Amino acid sequence: MAIILGIDPGSRMTGYGVIRQTGRQITYLGSGCINVVRSLKGEEATLADKLKVIHDGVMELIQQFQPTEFAIEQVFMARNPDSALKLGQARGAAIVAAAVAGLPVAEYAARLVKQAVVGTGAADKQQVQHMVMALLKLTNKPQADAADALAVALCHAHMRRQPLLPTTRGTL
Amino acid sequence: MAIILGIDPGSRMTGYGVIRQTGRQITYLGSGCINVVRSLKGEEATLADKLKVIHDGVMELIQQFQPTEFAIEQVFMARNPDSALKLGQARGAAIVAAAVAGLPVAEYAARLVKQAVVGTGAADKQQVQHMVMALLKLTNKPQADAADALAVALCHAHMRRQPLLPTTRGTL
Repeated sequence: MAIILGIDPGSRMTGYGVIRQTGRQITYLGSGCINVVRSLKGEEATLADKLKVIHDGVMELIQQFQPTEFAIEQVFMARNPDSALKLGQARGAAIVAAAVAGLPVAEYAARLVKQAVVGTGAADKQQVQHMVMALLKLTNKPQADAADALAVALCHAHMRRQPLLPTTRGTL
Repeated sequence: MAIILGIDPGSRMTGYGVIRQTGRQITYLGSGCINVVRSLKGEEATLADKLKVIHDGVMELIQQFQPTEFAIEQVFMARNPDSALKLGQARGAAIVAAAVAGLPVAEYAARLVKQAVVGTGAADKQQVQHMVMALLKLTNKPQADAADALAVALCHAHMRRQPLLPTTRGTL
């Protein structure tokens, strides 16, 4: 049995999705977004405040759901240096929370996540959202960031049973 | 009295420098590098392992030196998306450690750091190293990353006494 916490990090909005895998059976446990902007509304927030919201949010999810594994999308090509820096900071804050909690962290390329969930690496966001709903028998459509986080968790559930590739390693 | 921990984050090497400011007097307390690569030598390290080394390293420095303030260089223009992502992840890991410890985090643009330490925003690394040694009466030349970390700590010591500009805010 594994409880998988998937995270789709972003500097303004970090999506999360939690599933339980027991043999071939997958159960939806929860999903949502850590809304950095809303959490700090009304305050003149520093970068440190914002990163702490992401870090503490992931820590709270770990306490709440007691996951045994952590999955996150790997970034191959960021759009531009400025957004890459912001995304990197958000990823750093989220991954550190998982690492400090002692969770194994798996990274998967976006193409592999789409391949695992939709069946094609070229799937669009709507297709991912649709298949996440179908696979987890959800009646309500999850937010886009939450759907992406559930997709990476589903990809991990798939890969840990059938590891076609060696674990994707992050490069620093 | 303030004890200032300056950090120059990097994905392979994170420099640190610690100074104590009492009125106009500044005392060198320590400096060095968190060597991510050496810490994980021989292991097939994941991104999470590497970010945890930075995070835990900063936590240990906070426990050792009990700083009251934290200073870090602000990144305006990263070179390319790939290095920006890696730098962002390292910054995220370091800043989260400071934020979790409850330290106020100040960010300063590289130009302002050079201006404060050397007197010109266009100073090169050698000039920064030289002035850091002179200002702190060091007999041994600190490593480049450690010198940069001491420089940002000295910049913060200067700015907190004479805040010419409003505190630089990070943008996410």
